[in-house]
Amino acid sequence: MKKEVNVAILGFGVVGQGTYKVLAENADLIEKRIGARVKVKRIVEINTARYDTPGVPREVFTPDYSDVLNDPDIDIVVEMIGGVELASRFMLQALERGKHVVSSNKAALAVNIRKMNETAKANGCMLRYEASVCGAIPVMNALSTSLSVNNIKSIRGIVNGTSNYILTKMEEEGLAYDVALRQAQENGFAEQDPTGDVEGFDSANKIVLLAAIAYGEYVPPEEVDRTGISGITPADIEAAREKNCRIRLIAGARREDGKLRLSVKPELIPCDDILASVRNEFNGITITGDMSGDIFFYGRGAGSVPTGAAVAGDVAEIAACVARDTHRVAIATSRV
Amino acid sequence: MKKEVNVAILGFGVVGQGTYKVLAENADLIEKRIGARVKVKRIVEINTARYDTPGVPREVFTPDYSDVLNDPDIDIVVEMIGGVELASRFMLQALERGKHVVSSNKAALAVNIRKMNETAKANGCMLRYEASVCGAIPVMNALSTSLSVNNIKSIRGIVNGTSNYILTKMEEEGLAYDVALRQAQENGFAEQDPTGDVEGFDSANKIVLLAAIAYGEYVPPEEVDRTGISGITPADIEAAREKNCRIRLIAGARREDGKLRLSVKPELIPCDDILASVRNEFNGITITGDMSGDIFFYGRGAGSVPTGAAVAGDVAEIAACVARDTHRVAIATSRV
Repeated sequence: MKKEVNVAILGFGVVGQGTYKVLAENADLIEKRIGARVKVKRIVEINTARYDTPGVPREVFTPDYSDVLNDPDIDIVVEMIGGVELASRFMLQALERGKHVVSSNKAALAVNIRKMNETAKANGCMLRYEASVCGAIPVMNALSTSLSVNNIKSIRGIVNGTSNYILTKMEEEGLAYDVALRQAQENGFAEQDPTGDVEGFDSANKIVLLAAIAYGEYVPPEEVDRTGISGITPADIEAAREKNCRIRLIAGARREDGKLRLSVKPELIPCDDILASVRNEFNGITITGDMSGDIFFYGRGAGSVPTGAAVAGDVAEIAACVARDTHRVAIATSRV
Repeated sequence: MKKEVNVAILGFGVVGQGTYKVLAENADLIEKRIGARVKVKRIVEINTARYDTPGVPREVFTPDYSDVLNDPDIDIVVEMIGGVELASRFMLQALERGKHVVSSNKAALAVNIRKMNETAKANGCMLRYEASVCGAIPVMNALSTSLSVNNIKSIRGIVNGTSNYILTKMEEEGLAYDVALRQAQENGFAEQDPTGDVEGFDSANKIVLLAAIAYGEYVPPEEVDRTGISGITPADIEAAREKNCRIRLIAGARREDGKLRLSVKPELIPCDDILASVRNEFNGITITGDMSGDIFFYGRGAGSVPTGAAVAGDVAEIAACVARDTHRVAIATSRV
């Protein structure tokens, strides 16, 4: 059995730093569980100011990805650079060199997941992306293991914390959409350009990835029936309340007449549906299996360390296989 | 790769039948995912009236466990007979013959988990028991995979549907304990002798098993600080309501001064804690990791088919390893 598994992190931003923290601080725990040491050998980062991060040895940093691709000791590449084109290229290059890949990049994965899976398979590599959907909540793992004995009847999830934060503030504090958005931006729950979150593009990417695992079918993001929350008014919120409902931006998947339909849209959720209890920046998702019935998962969908924990969980699962030399026969996370 | 994995079910009661249904009806789906056919080759059952169950070939039934133990083609034994002594002996015998074991029997496992794990390890076998805690909710799998990169700070769960059903009825319909219990019995949510459920013995077994996975430490059931719900009065419920709380029977685990403490007791849960939203016979559990933060899981904690789905999930995970011949290096579910 291999006693050390080496990791490279691409991009040392918020989630990259969270991932490093989890892998470094809980290294003994992870080693105890999987029987091998997981070591971050390289961090690829072009912003040299980050080379002075306290607690991270300066010599692990490099601006040059070829230092990773050409290093046969690196087993797992953790892609955290964001964006679609460059990130996708980097992931494919890693897989082509026989390196396993972990990513939290829903945008790149939602577009290129089939190509990624093909390339992973052709090279005997594992590809995991728990952190791309619902941050710390292990919903992808559940779908690809325990729940995979079910035909999935439907998925209904609140998978975008920004939108949910805004809707919660509108509802609980009677704010207009614009005011709630500004508050979310001031509190770090919304970006300066909030389009991707509030118009449902982010949720659309996530439901594409969830459906790929749950149904083994690929629906491209542009085919998701998508409506955002920017048109929601205090009057809508009030009308919902009168029906004893709350408005939530729901990412959904279900079969209709044999066809898999994906949607992202504001829906009226009855107050006694557990999805209605998801407040502020949290995420929650109900998966209905033909045998398990409804299973609901809830937790933090974002944040440096929670998301880093999801990445580290994937890294540890792959490292356990690498250490045992079972990675070539591991079951693919996604079936598309 | 092995193309067929054979299973024996011990005990064809409620959960045994649910397990058979899931494995039979979703056999194609499971085969597609793991690349091998999972077949129920034998059902050990002494009640011969059950041999006439529609949809189950009569020839799979036998009253004699040695037909399983002496059959080298049987890879996985699913123990569903209940009770402690005989069930434990049957599981150990299976492991000693090199057969993997899946069980939903929290009572037997909570007492004998260390011996079971030792025996499994010594014989290169896997032992899984997702269905023993929270039925269909894949919480054991999450703790032993994705969440295992966390030091677990605490577990707080509603893991006994009977007690929660009674507490919900007392709260929502203003019933006295005795009346609510009788209603639960009439509706099939409580047994004629409800002691195990309402006095917290069942929850105690479950928190022992959760803690064994989450903390890698064994605390015997008799050391769980345990109080049931039979002393709860309508006045208690009303006093909770005045504090904007609900009473829930909480199975908890946490470290205090370095020592792992397990408890089962009625607690006041603030209405805005998501645990308070768990109503009727449902289960819900919050797991707090040092990195992931709070993750909450919710679903049906009992029932023939949902529980059978959890058993089938474990069977499929083991069968995937058996088919690939990786079972001997698989990581043990529990670390005690």
